[in-house]
Amino acid sequence: MGSDNLPLFVKEYRDKLKADVILISDTSLISLDQPSITVGLRGLSYMEVEVTGANRDLHSGVYGGAVANPINVLAEMITSLIDKEGRITIPGFYDKVKDLTSSEREALNKAPFDLSEYKKELGIDEIKGEKGYTTLERTGVRPTLDCNGIWGGYTGEGAKTVLPSKASAKISMRLVPDQEPNEITKLFTDHFISIAPKSVKVKVTAHHGGQPAVTPTDSKAYKAAEKAFLEVWGKSPIPTRDGGSIPIVALFKKELGLDTVLMGFGLDSDALHSPNEHYGIKNFLIGIETIVAFYKHFADSKD
Amino acid sequence: MGSDNLPLFVKEYRDKLKADVILISDTSLISLDQPSITVGLRGLSYMEVEVTGANRDLHSGVYGGAVANPINVLAEMITSLIDKEGRITIPGFYDKVKDLTSSEREALNKAPFDLSEYKKELGIDEIKGEKGYTTLERTGVRPTLDCNGIWGGYTGEGAKTVLPSKASAKISMRLVPDQEPNEITKLFTDHFISIAPKSVKVKVTAHHGGQPAVTPTDSKAYKAAEKAFLEVWGKSPIPTRDGGSIPIVALFKKELGLDTVLMGFGLDSDALHSPNEHYGIKNFLIGIETIVAFYKHFADSKD
Repeated sequence: MGSDNLPLFVKEYRDKLKADVILISDTSLISLDQPSITVGLRGLSYMEVEVTGANRDLHSGVYGGAVANPINVLAEMITSLIDKEGRITIPGFYDKVKDLTSSEREALNKAPFDLSEYKKELGIDEIKGEKGYTTLERTGVRPTLDCNGIWGGYTGEGAKTVLPSKASAKISMRLVPDQEPNEITKLFTDHFISIAPKSVKVKVTAHHGGQPAVTPTDSKAYKAAEKAFLEVWGKSPIPTRDGGSIPIVALFKKELGLDTVLMGFGLDSDALHSPNEHYGIKNFLIGIETIVAFYKHFADSKD
Repeated sequence: MGSDNLPLFVKEYRDKLKADVILISDTSLISLDQPSITVGLRGLSYMEVEVTGANRDLHSGVYGGAVANPINVLAEMITSLIDKEGRITIPGFYDKVKDLTSSEREALNKAPFDLSEYKKELGIDEIKGEKGYTTLERTGVRPTLDCNGIWGGYTGEGAKTVLPSKASAKISMRLVPDQEPNEITKLFTDHFISIAPKSVKVKVTAHHGGQPAVTPTDSKAYKAAEKAFLEVWGKSPIPTRDGGSIPIVALFKKELGLDTVLMGFGLDSDALHSPNEHYGIKNFLIGIETIVAFYKHFADSKD
């Protein structure tokens, strides 16, 4: 849910938190056949919006057609945030997004990826995203905007002919270097208020945010992690960019000056943030082995 | 909630339900200073739609930007149902809508209506509706489309970074003569399925519908009602069109051959279908008096 207190805590206990390296196991592998180390994480700006029409719920027959319906208006406002090319329309949103070089893009797209397998596993007929980018780029290095929740009016069984007073949505944006969550939160807020028609009132609230992060691949820690995977898995890990956000990576870097190694052992099929989320026993056991090997190689490399 | 059994019941007990006239008190007055009799009701077609993206809820970081978000897609689909002029875009939707003559429009707009009072009472800065029509026309004689409810994804406190599998909405349309609810339900269903992008699956379900109705002003019953208002209120009632739907009016006409007089005593400020719905004791008592007077005048007019 995001923590307001963690940054204060880390700042206050900076001395007690001294360490050689940060190791976080909150990322996924490409597969059990192909180990990987996450070297980039997206940041996050998470907003909640509320659109109010009339001062009370109305009878949709008596007022329908003459008074703005906040659900319809919210739907319009959400729709306008992404254009036909899949680009986010908030002015200034892309200003600080670093474009990847063609060799960086090439490297990123070398990770094994089977589109028909991906669609089959998700049960979808077609993918959808920003024009001009591959799926690995869309989830790894491009910013996004998604509705995480929406609610308003009557949501029970059957029919109720209400023209509701309010409709709300949770809308989050995944950010990439060098987008600043606080800046994006402000851009979103200003824009969302500016596009509201006069027939409604709009309230915008910010939930937690997180900095995007890129971790180095030339550090002692990364090299020790590579050796650990090679020893336990018999294969070198591929560096990947993960679409998720782990805000403490940027926080530890800023406050403690420490780089992080992201050695996670989950799989995309673990149903993260979904009902029936799970984690394989095999992943658990091979993860322990790999981390033990990391400690050894990291300790050795310090000499 | 609509009744599937009432039409069957009325058909089966047609003989036992014989009557001289139908009197229904489920409508509103213009005000306590200006009595009115409702002579037109809108019909209703009430739909529920469900948009499904992936086969499970996803982590919005891992999949966001690459997989269709059913909330965003539903918002786009809802938005496309009404154009910039406030007209409904479903092909064939207006085909059977009777345009009012200019004298009918003039009569309709004679009812007392104060726009700034209306906006103040609802707490809105601006009204919204179909271009080229007044508020009384928009709620009385024009068909409408409203979202009555919407839900999907995470709707609790704070933030959850989910890219949901499903999003749903309840969408109803108020109909006017001579739109047929079953036809409109079919037009809506076909259109909504046709506009779904390939990245999602769509399910459309129909809830209850109702025929629009216009009641005669030259009947014995209407004239008796006019006399009753004049006697009790000291003022002639104005005939009005009500935006709501009372499906049994058309049902009683069809099955029993009976016209209805709509003598209701509510006010728009009663907060119909809203929290804290209420009904004035004064309205209750003067309603009783007026109906008693109606019985007398209706009985007299039969001689």
